This record gives sequence, structure tokens and C-alpha cells, in this order.
Amino acid sequence: MKRSFEIDRILERRQLEALLRQVGEERYHINHPFHRLMVEGKLSKGQMQAWALNRYCYQAAIPRKDAIILSRLDDPEPRIAWRERIIDHDGDGTKPGGIERWLKLATGLGLNVDMVKAQIYALPATRFAVGAYVTLVEKRSLLEAIASSLTELFSPKVISERVPAILKRYDYITEDTLSYFSPRLHQAPRDAEFALAYVLEHAKTAEEQQAAVDALITKCDILWAMLDALHFAYVEPALCAPGAFVPEDHPR
Amino acid sequence: MKRSFEIDRILERRQLEALLRQVGEERYHINHPFHRLMVEGKLSKGQMQAWALNRYCYQAAIPRKDAIILSRLDDPEPRIAWRERIIDHDGDGTKPGGIERWLKLATGLGLNVDMVKAQIYALPATRFAVGAYVTLVEKRSLLEAIASSLTELFSPKVISERVPAILKRYDYITEDTLSYFSPRLHQAPRDAEFALAYVLEHAKTAEEQQAAVDALITKCDILWAMLDALHFAYVEPALCAPGAFVPEDHPR
Repeated sequence: MKRSFEIDRILERRQLEALLRQVGEERYHINHPFHRLMVEGKLSKGQMQAWALNRYCYQAAIPRKDAIILSRLDDPEPRIAWRERIIDHDGDGTKPGGIERWLKLATGLGLNVDMVKAQIYALPATRFAVGAYVTLVEKRSLLEAIASSLTELFSPKVISERVPAILKRYDYITEDTLSYFSPRLHQAPRDAEFALAYVLEHAKTAEEQQAAVDALITKCDILWAMLDALHFAYVEPALCAPGAFVPEDHPR
Repeated sequence: MKRSFEIDRILERRQLEALLRQVGEERYHINHPFHRLMVEGKLSKGQMQAWALNRYCYQAAIPRKDAIILSRLDDPEPRIAWRERIIDHDGDGTKPGGIERWLKLATGLGLNVDMVKAQIYALPATRFAVGAYVTLVEKRSLLEAIASSLTELFSPKVISERVPAILKRYDYITEDTLSYFSPRLHQAPRDAEFALAYVLEHAKTAEEQQAAVDALITKCDILWAMLDALHFAYVEPALCAPGAFVPEDHPR
């Protein structure tokens, strides 16, 4: 078997950027069957609940992983830019942040807020994937930690597809319930622009470029594995891990 | 939803031991459908290969996680006991250890040894579950790190079921190929006895007892999630994560 996205010589900046974007084209979870079912209106309410409940674990970890990156940046300037991410997710005490808006989505789907926040009813595989993201930013190089955030290059596309499709095809979901997503449409490109510039600037050797590309692949794997786990537990073969959330309409 | 295995008062030693054993009864992967298919002789050669290839990532991480525990033990006596585990898995330079014996299983199933050792063709979910085990022993209390090893209380049962069933039902697999398992039948009980005594001695408060039980549950979740991922990718719906090993007989 051939390794994917192998770099055998130093790439120019535009070539590295093109390769990073190609990783997204091939590996981003917009291509996952669970996402396809969602935008085609084919998920049950229980399946949508399971998605919101599990994805909460990811949302809740984001400011912690960003704080780790903040702690590894040596200069005030990049820290000022990066801390915006934490503000976006945690809010500023008056305006709700992304985590609170995600809880609104979860409760709008009929879930109990404490059950969601407890995280213990999420699928273990979800927690392990999220943990892998935190571990990556903690233990790998700073370049890899920052490169792993580059999935945000692709998130406006998935959001632009997801939101109108959900509003059109799931009559019990309102625009207000989906308020998590609209700020992300300008936050994500701003964040991705900074991270991309950082990666293109700091990935100078072929080894560094390979490490950056591999970090983005791993991040895509993390998002993909989260949907694999949802698909397995709630769609086909619909085998829920012991102790995990079982929606009322679960087929078994 | 009610939380599983909740402890609301301090348990006596025999009660705590009974509860730990009950976790195994309910949550150990001997109950997983992928294991059931294996012992019923219903897995294809490609599915057996995928199992061996993925499980290698777990085997390869075990001595590293045991070295973390070794580094956290303050006294020579428990370190002497615990280092046996590392010797068992890494070997002593003349006798092969568990990792080498697992590679023999993988190559006996027709896999290329370098592909297995590279680990990059394993399912991402396997790597994330294994990573969660290493992170647990590193970041949680020493009591939890040790309690998480207590799945070995239950492993002789799974091995005693697996080995004769495989020899009987898969004619291309020999006893020699399965040589990984026989030493485990005496190593695992010896290791589990030490770990159980440690946990029963050190889990004094209800909170500590709960932490020990939860660590064992998480470990069961890790093993379970590894089989979930195999089942999803190679049995049903047989959707392989991008970049992962695809056996020749994969249904898609």
C-alpha cells in the first residue's frame, strides 16, 4: 500500500497550500455518509439528537485545546490572534459563546442540558477522538498543533450545505436552534487564514511540510471517526456501545 | 438516564471486588458481536487480518503505558512486580516478547510485517482508543492507572474461548501462529492479582472506589470501541475509513 500525501521534496508555499487543500477535498467529513444522510433529510430525530450530544464533547474541548496552543506561543501577537478562538467558544460573559449556542442546539432537539454537559452518555469513540485532538496539540510540535486546526478552511462549505438543508428538511428545527453556525461562517475563515499563514511560513523543510500535512490528515481522521461512531451506533448496524445514549426511536 | 455502577457509600473490599468483576461481566469485549463472529468461525481471512493489524497498535502501546505506570510507582517492590509486564511484551533479547508474537500472528495471517508495524494502516479509531489508554495512565491518578489494567481479570476467559475456536474453525491458522496467547494465560492472572490487591488496598474512600470502577469501565470502553471500529469498517456496513487497510476480500 502506498502512503497518502507523501512529500518527497521541499514544496513551494503555493504547492503546500494546494496539498493541504487537497487533503480537505479528500478527507474532510463533508464526504461522510452520516453527513450525507443529514443533508438529505434522512436522519431521525433520535439520530440528530445523538449527533448533537456527541458533537458537544468536541465543542467543549475546543477552548481547552486552544488554550494549550496559546500556552505554546511565545509572542503576544499570535497569542492575541489565537485567543479570539477561546472568546468565540466561551463567550464574554454577556454574549453567548459557541459552547452555549451548541447547547441551545442540543436542547432545541429535545435533549436535557445536564445530560449533554455530563458527556458520559456520548459514545466512548467520540471521547477518544476528541482526546486524540487535545493530545495532538499538547504533544506534537507547535506547527502540527496549528496545522491540525486547518479543517476550518473547509468548514464554511459544510456549514453552508448543512444549515439550509436542515432548515428545509427537518420541520422541528428552527433557525434560532441553529444559531451556533452563523457566526462560524466569518470566524472560521479568519482563524483559518491566520493558521494557514503560520503553517506556510513555518513549514520550511520537507519533513516539516510532511508533519503539517499529516497533522491535518489526523484532524480529518478525528472528525471522520466521530461520524463513523455515530453511524455505527445509530444508523447501521445501530449497535450502541454499553452505557451510551439510546434515543427513543433507536431501531433496536 | 441513570449512571451505571454508581457508588454511594464506602464499599468493603469484597464488595468492591465484586463490583469490579461485575463491570467485566457486563462490559468486557467478550460480549462484542465482532468477537462472537470470530469464535463462531464467521470472519473472513481479510476480517481476521484487519483484527490482527489493528490490535497490533494496542499491543505495541502496552509496554509504553506500563513504563508510564512504572515511572509513577514510588517504591522498588511494586516496580519490580510491574516491570515483569514490560519484559513479557518486549522480550528479553533472546525469548520473543508479546509484541513479536503478535507480529507472528499478523504475518501468519498473510500480512506484511512492515505494514503492520507502521500502524498508519490501522483504523484511526483504533489509534484514538489506544491513545486514550496511554493518556489515562498518564493523566489520571495512579490508582486509576492501575485499575484500568484490571481487564486482565477477564482475559483468560476470552483467550480460552478464542484460541480453540479459531483453531477449530479457521483451517489456515495454526497453533504456532497463535503462540501469542498461551503465555498470557499465566501472565494475565499474575498481573491482575497484583493490580487487584493494589486497587483494593488503595481505594479507601467512596470517591476513590468510584474512580477505580470508572477507570475499569473506560478500559472496557477502549477495547469495545476497537471492536466497534473493526465491525463498522470490515463487517457492517463495511465502510473503511480513508487511508485504512482494505483486505482483498473486502465486500466493497
